Amino acid sequence: MRQTRGVREIHVIGIGAGDPDQLTLQAVKALRSTDVFFLLDKGEVKGDLIRLRRDILDAHLPAGSYRVVEARDPERDRKAGGAAYAPAVGDWRGARAGIYERLIAEELDEDGTGAFLVWGDPTLYDSTLAVLEEVRERGAVEFAYDVVPGVSSVSALAARHRTGLNRVARPVQITTGRRLAEGGFPEGVDDVVVMLDAHQAFRRFAEDDMDIYWGAYIGTPDEILVSGPIAEAGPRIERLRAQARERKGWIMDTYLLRRGSARDGRGQDRPARPR
Amino acid sequence: MRQTRGVREIHVIGIGAGDPDQLTLQAVKALRSTDVFFLLDKGEVKGDLIRLRRDILDAHLPAGSYRVVEARDPERDRKAGGAAYAPAVGDWRGARAGIYERLIAEELDEDGTGAFLVWGDPTLYDSTLAVLEEVRERGAVEFAYDVVPGVSSVSALAARHRTGLNRVARPVQITTGRRLAEGGFPEGVDDVVVMLDAHQAFRRFAEDDMDIYWGAYIGTPDEILVSGPIAEAGPRIERLRAQARERKGWIMDTYLLRRGSARDGRGQDRPARPR
Ligand SMILES: C[S@@+](CC[C@H](N)C(=O)[O-])C[C@H]1O[C@@H](n2cnc3c(N)ncnc32)[C@H](O)[C@@H]1O
Ligand SMILES: C[S@@+](CC[C@H](N)C(=O)[O-])C[C@H]1O[C@@H](n2cnc3c(N)ncnc32)[C@H](O)[C@@H]1O
Repeated sequence: MRQTRGVREIHVIGIGAGDPDQLTLQAVKALRSTDVFFLLDKGEVKGDLIRLRRDILDAHLPAGSYRVVEARDPERDRKAGGAAYAPAVGDWRGARAGIYERLIAEELDEDGTGAFLVWGDPTLYDSTLAVLEEVRERGAVEFAYDVVPGVSSVSALAARHRTGLNRVARPVQITTGRRLAEGGFPEGVDDVVVMLDAHQAFRRFAEDDMDIYWGAYIGTPDEILVSGPIAEAGPRIERLRAQARERKGWIMDTYLLRRGSARDGRGQDRPARPR
Repeated sequence: MRQTRGVREIHVIGIGAGDPDQLTLQAVKALRSTDVFFLLDKGEVKGDLIRLRRDILDAHLPAGSYRVVEARDPERDRKAGGAAYAPAVGDWRGARAGIYERLIAEELDEDGTGAFLVWGDPTLYDSTLAVLEEVRERGAVEFAYDVVPGVSSVSALAARHRTGLNRVARPVQITTGRRLAEGGFPEGVDDVVVMLDAHQAFRRFAEDDMDIYWGAYIGTPDEILVSGPIAEAGPRIERLRAQARERKGWIMDTYLLRRGSARDGRGQDRPARPR
């Protein structure tokens, strides 16, 4: 994948959303052409996701053939609520760009190749690309970069529930728990995927004609799946979610809300296989 | 992956949207556990996509270790306009379910494993899952099935343009060219991915403060990428699209429309690398 000489190269590699076998062949090739891996600990998941990345490297690369540099990523912890440290977005971006800049300039030879391993797909609710772009704008270190797409948690969720994301010829929206909580069910769509939801915003639709397809830790040994009419599935999800979070100390969940599926007769015909 | 005995198993395998290296390791494993591949020719792309699937099989499986059954999928050709054969949706679904049912019942041993290779991600604008569900409802043949998620053309598009699908903490909608043409820019979102657009619906926004990130044949040797303010990039896309379509006889393109990006200062800072 190295195309130029004397220029640092960066791969931004989507590694799938939990199952190490969700890595693409392209991602494996990119791993193999990398000298230095930058693993950024975002804190919120207590290193478990760092460990998974290390396992992926172990599985695909000969020991000793690569170097790993860990750094602390000053990611704002959206889930920690008001008490969390939350610098202004500008400062925070600057802080991150500074760290990435230093990693690239100091840890990579001038013709070296570095990589960031991004959870799921790098183009969905991930800031690595924006931060790299900011580093380029600062102009202190030159590098080229490419992006290896990955299987997102959205695709993984729908696959495990064996349901389409959209209904025939209709749109699907991907949004955050915060927006759903603040703005209600989005206009103009009946199928909505919700990510980054720390507060179970789906609870406000408990009375509605809606199905939910929920998954936590999808693709990992801890995976939990629940689906069904929201009135019934909702309380079950709340319970399972609280228990799982208690047990592991953190949770990663995503869900699809499907409005009015009873009307088109395709709501109940795909019972979940809860595990 | 075979979990039961005496029951036919089906894998619905996402194969990525063009680059054979977009196959996941999970997909390769699923290929290797398959006895019979069902390749459905949807007509509109004159067999090129069937050939790509055959190449994928050749690359990952020993010759002679598997069987391929080709069938004609009565997919409605959305691009052909009014003159095309377009049975009522019900009939059409029924016709497809009948074909799939026959394939599974007649071409698969009672404990055999079959697979459908689905372009991109099987949960996005693809009907394989709905048809299989219909076959199960008909009850004439019993089978179990699972879904292997894939890299969608949406992720592939954004990766090639090295841009996020969503902006920070904001939603993204995925919709069809037809809906965009008929309904205008969707409510409540500023980032919209458009698929299945035979009529370049983006043209109606030529006067707007909007960026477009367009890609055709993404991930293949024919890939074309264009991005920029829609007023400038739009006419260029129209020209390139017409030429490419003429040359190859068919086209597969997808684009992201990003409204008001000049306002947040992140629109122009990622120039396309048109090829
Ligand atoms: C910062 S976003 C990153 C998304 C990632 N780039 C992707 O493509 O999936 C993190 C959110 O993704 C979702 N998520 C990621 N992995 C998941 C998994 N294995 N199971 C359930 N949800 C997951 C959760 O909604 C989580 O809050
Ligand atoms: C029937 S949909 C299937 C989508 C597929 N399941 C996916 O995940 O990408 C076909 C549409 O996908 C888009 N598409 C698929 N592959 C593409 C590619 N390689 N380049 C550009 N667009 C593509 C086009 O918008 C096309 O009209």
